[in-house]
Amino acid sequence: MVIALNETQHGRPIGVKVREIRETLIKKKADAIIFSALDDIMWLMNIRGFDIPYNPLAFSIAFVTNSELHLFIDPTKIDKQVADHLNLGLVTVHSYDSANQFLQAWHEKNKSLQGYKVFVPNSTNYSLASIFGKENLLVAMSPIQMMKAVKNSVEMAGMRASHIRDSAALIEFLHWLEVEVEAGHDVDEISAAEKVRHFRAQQPGFVDLSFSTISASGEHAALPHYKYDAETGKAKIVKGGVYLVDSGGQYHDGTTDVTRTVVIGQGDDQFSFHNTLVLRGHIENAMAKFPKGIQGVRLDTLSRQALWEQGLDFGHGTGHGVGHFLSVHEGPCGISYRVSAGDEGLQAGMVLTIEPGYYLPGKYGIRIENCYELVEDAEHSAFLRFKELTLVPIQLTLIKKNLLEKKHVAWLNEYHATVLRVVGKYLLKTGKEAVYLWLEKQCVQLDEQSYDLWLTCV
Amino acid sequence: MVIALNETQHGRPIGVKVREIRETLIKKKADAIIFSALDDIMWLMNIRGFDIPYNPLAFSIAFVTNSELHLFIDPTKIDKQVADHLNLGLVTVHSYDSANQFLQAWHEKNKSLQGYKVFVPNSTNYSLASIFGKENLLVAMSPIQMMKAVKNSVEMAGMRASHIRDSAALIEFLHWLEVEVEAGHDVDEISAAEKVRHFRAQQPGFVDLSFSTISASGEHAALPHYKYDAETGKAKIVKGGVYLVDSGGQYHDGTTDVTRTVVIGQGDDQFSFHNTLVLRGHIENAMAKFPKGIQGVRLDTLSRQALWEQGLDFGHGTGHGVGHFLSVHEGPCGISYRVSAGDEGLQAGMVLTIEPGYYLPGKYGIRIENCYELVEDAEHSAFLRFKELTLVPIQLTLIKKNLLEKKHVAWLNEYHATVLRVVGKYLLKTGKEAVYLWLEKQCVQLDEQSYDLWLTCV
Repeated sequence: MVIALNETQHGRPIGVKVREIRETLIKKKADAIIFSALDDIMWLMNIRGFDIPYNPLAFSIAFVTNSELHLFIDPTKIDKQVADHLNLGLVTVHSYDSANQFLQAWHEKNKSLQGYKVFVPNSTNYSLASIFGKENLLVAMSPIQMMKAVKNSVEMAGMRASHIRDSAALIEFLHWLEVEVEAGHDVDEISAAEKVRHFRAQQPGFVDLSFSTISASGEHAALPHYKYDAETGKAKIVKGGVYLVDSGGQYHDGTTDVTRTVVIGQGDDQFSFHNTLVLRGHIENAMAKFPKGIQGVRLDTLSRQALWEQGLDFGHGTGHGVGHFLSVHEGPCGISYRVSAGDEGLQAGMVLTIEPGYYLPGKYGIRIENCYELVEDAEHSAFLRFKELTLVPIQLTLIKKNLLEKKHVAWLNEYHATVLRVVGKYLLKTGKEAVYLWLEKQCVQLDEQSYDLWLTCV
Repeated sequence: MVIALNETQHGRPIGVKVREIRETLIKKKADAIIFSALDDIMWLMNIRGFDIPYNPLAFSIAFVTNSELHLFIDPTKIDKQVADHLNLGLVTVHSYDSANQFLQAWHEKNKSLQGYKVFVPNSTNYSLASIFGKENLLVAMSPIQMMKAVKNSVEMAGMRASHIRDSAALIEFLHWLEVEVEAGHDVDEISAAEKVRHFRAQQPGFVDLSFSTISASGEHAALPHYKYDAETGKAKIVKGGVYLVDSGGQYHDGTTDVTRTVVIGQGDDQFSFHNTLVLRGHIENAMAKFPKGIQGVRLDTLSRQALWEQGLDFGHGTGHGVGHFLSVHEGPCGISYRVSAGDEGLQAGMVLTIEPGYYLPGKYGIRIENCYELVEDAEHSAFLRFKELTLVPIQLTLIKKNLLEKKHVAWLNEYHATVLRVVGKYLLKTGKEAVYLWLEKQCVQLDEQSYDLWLTCV
């Protein structure tokens, strides 16, 4: 099955997107371009599919010339509505299996006529590219990579709306978890992950999770990419133990990705120390103001400095791009310790995660992850800032106040005020009073006087 | 003329250096290596020359095989002492002009025997490389680049000692400048630059400046690479005006590079604001602790964040490598907004500048530059820190205290305590009591109570 997005979901019709691509072809002196990256094709055609778990993609190939637009896809996946949508976009639909033959014939015809150049994105597989013969290829980054990284206003509105609902679902989960564990009920990694899915699935527009939930108790959390199985997933979430949940959803209007690390009850001193270093690293990036167009590698250090100062570090990137109802990991932007391939720099309208962590093997792991949109700074238009999409409280009782500066506390207060205002309102509207009351406590404003209350303000 | 360094100056005999290079040849399966970068050759041969202003280099070519070591150089530049030195290092000396013929013959002989590979550093010029024929070339970064970037203990001792003398000379200059300007005497960019040279030239071991002094008054300082000429150099250094001096020396035991921006009398509010942002950016990097082996690009942001926060930036790199009695700009390490070519990461023993700036066209420019050695962190051996080589006070009366945090003030206090202890002692030893007394005032320790005195503590 394939679904078509309507204009209030995609914000830019096929025709407009194709026109931009054809302008690129003219600039590059190419006669055609082939797309085989599935998220490129879904974005271009304003469709989504269900062929791959967690990723709303359908197996397909697209071929764009200066006058034609071809989509190769299993025709049984296309119903009347999608066919009309594609027809309106002047898309010629072919069966997936006919792609090779079609492209071979196109090659023969154009080769004999006057010779040609075809733009082959560097993600294109070899067998497809080799149809055209080496001398006709122009290999470069897919132009759709940057086009879709910068969300249009409709896409961004969808990202914001889906993040409110998604945050509400995760807040419901965290509330449920505390109640269950405090009551002494059995909760293990598997049942917790199922509950994460359960609360998301109740939200309007829910399609799927955006990746397999990382539900990790205690030492399992020390493995950044931990995936529970039937055996390890029996690990209990216990009072005083660390629990890390990294999860996200696919909604008709957006894709989400969020990680919280919590302790039901009281965290120990060493954990709070490490947790505060990670939080500080998160906030340092979230507060940053930086020139438009810089590469993400230049922000990476901000999330590590507090850890470095203690001789610590973490072994993964600080952040990645996020698609709009597409892949949860999306290029070409990112915040890494390496320059990402094809990183043309950060622009307003991009969506990035910030997700520093710290992992103490055999004991626990910490990661605090939010999605942010990049917005132009209000004061200096040549500069960018992060604006939060994810709106889930960050546990205050796991913070050592002496490791934060006033500006970090101010950020945290503003963040929690926004969480309560925006998601709180949504929770009340959807009749979740008990969750709202719990959220209110999580979002308490900290002032100099109340600093000492932090460690007891559950 | 060419001079030979003795073992207490170079710390590693030719034979030891050549052995390391031959190990590289074995690893790379190469039969020989050619060197045409003059600083590579000077370093390898433990010699220095005088063919290029500010750079202690002699025109030459070196060729190293598994059993031979050839130096092509004008023989009239080699006196008995240097000849003995090279002889002891098993160097065969040839005239510079015979290089092509020699290499051509070597190529013919080895080609006909069994074929060969020659390692050609990527800085090698085309005509030299083409002697060997494409099929025999192995092109990569010169192995000497990293070898000489990491200073040995003798070289580093020389860098430290030469920086003390060089700092003393610059302090003498700054004292002289203040006395002259306060007395109402005429000082212009040219006479100031001559005085900078004069004080350096009186220091033991002085050979030359390490680059043409940037002596820039007022709006001239807004051009980061300003070079006065006979006309523009008449610009006066006046009370209340900004003066930027970027200069360095070549000594038998080291190379220096330092920039100070000063105002005789009182700086205005806007200047102090910008100056403090630059200082904060300098200190943020100087205080940083970071994992061994990271690329310099990851430190660059630290020196810009305070400026970025105000919507400001500067258009040059944050720092560059410095040679040991060699080129003042030396690869492959550096702190830039780009990944430097061949940057294999930062290591203990490297020498780097930190030199953020800010430039307000038509008004003034600011740059605060020190040289630092990279040292292993005392607490965490997998981490590095900067340790100051340059020991020249940073003008306290140009600082807005509300833009610095306690940790920045603590750094400044510690820096000034070191300046006074180390260079103060040297000034007294060399009979410069008046300069010492002036230095004492520049190095006043700031505490919370004395913050308010900053702007008057000349």
